[in-house]
Amino acid sequence: MINKLVNEIKKKNAPIVVGLDPMLSYIPSHIVDASVAEFGESLEAAADAVWKYNKAIVDAVYDLIPAVKPQIAMYEQFGIPGLNAFKKTVDYCHEKGLVVIGDVKRGDIGSTSAAYATAHLGKIKIGSKVFTPFDEDFATVNPYLGTDGIKPFVDVCKEEKKGIFVLVKTSNPSSGEFQDRLIDGRPLYEHVAEKVIEWGASSMDGDYSNVGAVVGATYPEVGERLRKLMPKAYILVPGYGAQGGKGSDLKVFFNSDGLGAIINSSRGIIAAYKQEKYASYGEAGFADAARAAVLDMKKDIKDSI
Amino acid sequence: MINKLVNEIKKKNAPIVVGLDPMLSYIPSHIVDASVAEFGESLEAAADAVWKYNKAIVDAVYDLIPAVKPQIAMYEQFGIPGLNAFKKTVDYCHEKGLVVIGDVKRGDIGSTSAAYATAHLGKIKIGSKVFTPFDEDFATVNPYLGTDGIKPFVDVCKEEKKGIFVLVKTSNPSSGEFQDRLIDGRPLYEHVAEKVIEWGASSMDGDYSNVGAVVGATYPEVGERLRKLMPKAYILVPGYGAQGGKGSDLKVFFNSDGLGAIINSSRGIIAAYKQEKYASYGEAGFADAARAAVLDMKKDIKDSI
Repeated sequence: MINKLVNEIKKKNAPIVVGLDPMLSYIPSHIVDASVAEFGESLEAAADAVWKYNKAIVDAVYDLIPAVKPQIAMYEQFGIPGLNAFKKTVDYCHEKGLVVIGDVKRGDIGSTSAAYATAHLGKIKIGSKVFTPFDEDFATVNPYLGTDGIKPFVDVCKEEKKGIFVLVKTSNPSSGEFQDRLIDGRPLYEHVAEKVIEWGASSMDGDYSNVGAVVGATYPEVGERLRKLMPKAYILVPGYGAQGGKGSDLKVFFNSDGLGAIINSSRGIIAAYKQEKYASYGEAGFADAARAAVLDMKKDIKDSI
Repeated sequence: MINKLVNEIKKKNAPIVVGLDPMLSYIPSHIVDASVAEFGESLEAAADAVWKYNKAIVDAVYDLIPAVKPQIAMYEQFGIPGLNAFKKTVDYCHEKGLVVIGDVKRGDIGSTSAAYATAHLGKIKIGSKVFTPFDEDFATVNPYLGTDGIKPFVDVCKEEKKGIFVLVKTSNPSSGEFQDRLIDGRPLYEHVAEKVIEWGASSMDGDYSNVGAVVGATYPEVGERLRKLMPKAYILVPGYGAQGGKGSDLKVFFNSDGLGAIINSSRGIIAAYKQEKYASYGEAGFADAARAAVLDMKKDIKDSI
C-alpha cells in the first residue's frame, strides 16, 4: 500500500493529505439547515451535514491530492450515524481514487488489536461471506502497549496489502511529557522509532515499508533526526498550518529524492473559507476556498523542499 | 462516578467487572444460526448474535456484579452493525443497574480528544436538542500523547460526573518494551502514574478520584508499587484468569480497606462453558456457566484479599 501512496504522490506531484476532520462549527449553515430540515434536530442530521460537507470538499480537491485522512473521533462524537458518515466518506474517497488514511489511533493487545486491525484494514468472514468493515488503506496506531499491540496490525497489513503509521512524536505541545523523556540517553520517541524499523522490516513495499511513523511538523529538529534514523519509514506529518507548522520547517522530513513524507492539513483546508485570506469565497464558496488552500499549500511545500 | 462504582462494589460485595469481549467463536452455534437465519450471512447477523449472547450473560450475572467492561474493538470489527450491538449492550447494562466501563483505549489531542470524550462519556448538542452518543460511565484512555490528550477527558468527567482509567502498566507480555524503561531511574509507568495523580486531583469523588489507572494482574510487583504511589486512584486490573493472573496475586492491588481495585475477567467468564471445569453446562448452558464462573471468581478474590 505504501507503494501505491508513493505513486499517487508522484502522479499528483503533491506530498499532501487533506484531513477530513469536520466540526459542526465549520459546516456552512445552509448545509446544516438543509440536513436539519430533512432529519430534524438529530445525530442523523449532524451526520448528514458532515457527509455533504465532506463530499463537496472531496469533489473540489480530489484531482489535486493523493490522499485524505478522516479523523474518526470527529464522526464518533455523532454516535452510530456519525460512523455511518465516516464509512460513506471512506467509500466515496475510494471511488474518487484517493488513498484513505484512517486517523483512528487505535491500539490494544493480542486478539483485541487484531479486531481493530480487522475493523479498519482487514476482512471478516461471516459464514461463507467476507466483509470489509471500515476498509481504510492505512490506520494510525498507538505504540504504548508495545509489539503485542502492533504485530496484529502488521500481520493484517501483509495479508491485505495495507499500511499503518505508528505515533512516534506527536505534534501537540505536551507530547514531550513522555515522548521526550530520556532512556539510556535517548528520548523515548527514538526507542519507538527503532521499533518502527523492526516492525516494518518484514513489510517492505517498493522503497518504503508499510509501517510508517507520525512525527509532528511542530518539531522540525526531531523530524530531521527521525528522518535519518528511519530511512525506510514514510512519515505522516500533522501540525502544518493551523497548529503552527510552516512550509520552511518541512524540508527536513523528506529524503533527498523528495519522498518519504506526507504533510497533513485539516482545518487549514476544509475550513479555509473562515480564514481572512480566503474570506472572499464566502460560506457558499467553502469548497472552492478549500481548493484554493490546497493549491497554496502545494506551492508552499514545493517551494520549501 | 467513581463513588457510584465504589458503592456498587460494596453493595454486591464483589470488586469484579465482567469483560463483554465477544468473539464469534465463543458464541454457541444455536445463537449464531438463529441470527444468520434472520439476517443472512452478514455483519448484521454477527452483531445480532453478539447482542443476544451478551444479553443472556448479563441476565445471568447482573445481580452478582457491579460493572461490565465491553471491549469496543470486538464490536468495531463488525462495522456499523457491530457498533450498534455495542450501544445496545451499554444501554441494556444501564437498565440492569450496572456501571459500564467502555474499554475504548482512545486518546488524541485537543479538540479531537474532546470529540472522543463526547462520544463515550459526554453529550452533544444539535440545535436545541442534546444527545448522548455512546454513554458509557467510564472510558479507558491511552496516555502516550500527554496532558493534551487526557485533559479533555477530565473536563468531560467533571461536567458529566463520569470517569476514566488511564493505561499505566498493561497486562501483556510486551508491555515492558516502553512502559518499563527507566527515566531518571524510574520506569515510564511510574511517570505516567504521577501524571494520573496530577490529572485526577481536580476530580475527586468521595475517597477516590474519577481518574483511575489500568495496571495488569500479570505484574503484581508493579501493582504493589503503583497501589502505594497512587492511593486515590482506583485501579482497573485486567489479566486475571485467561491471561494468567491469579487470585493470590491480587491482594497487592487493594488498599487496606479492601477497596481501590476492580478485577476484570472476560473470556474466563463469558466463555466459561468452553473450559473443562464448566463443560457440564454444555453450549446450551453458557449463561449459567458464566454465572458459576462469576461466583467462583468472587470466592477466589475474596479468599485472596
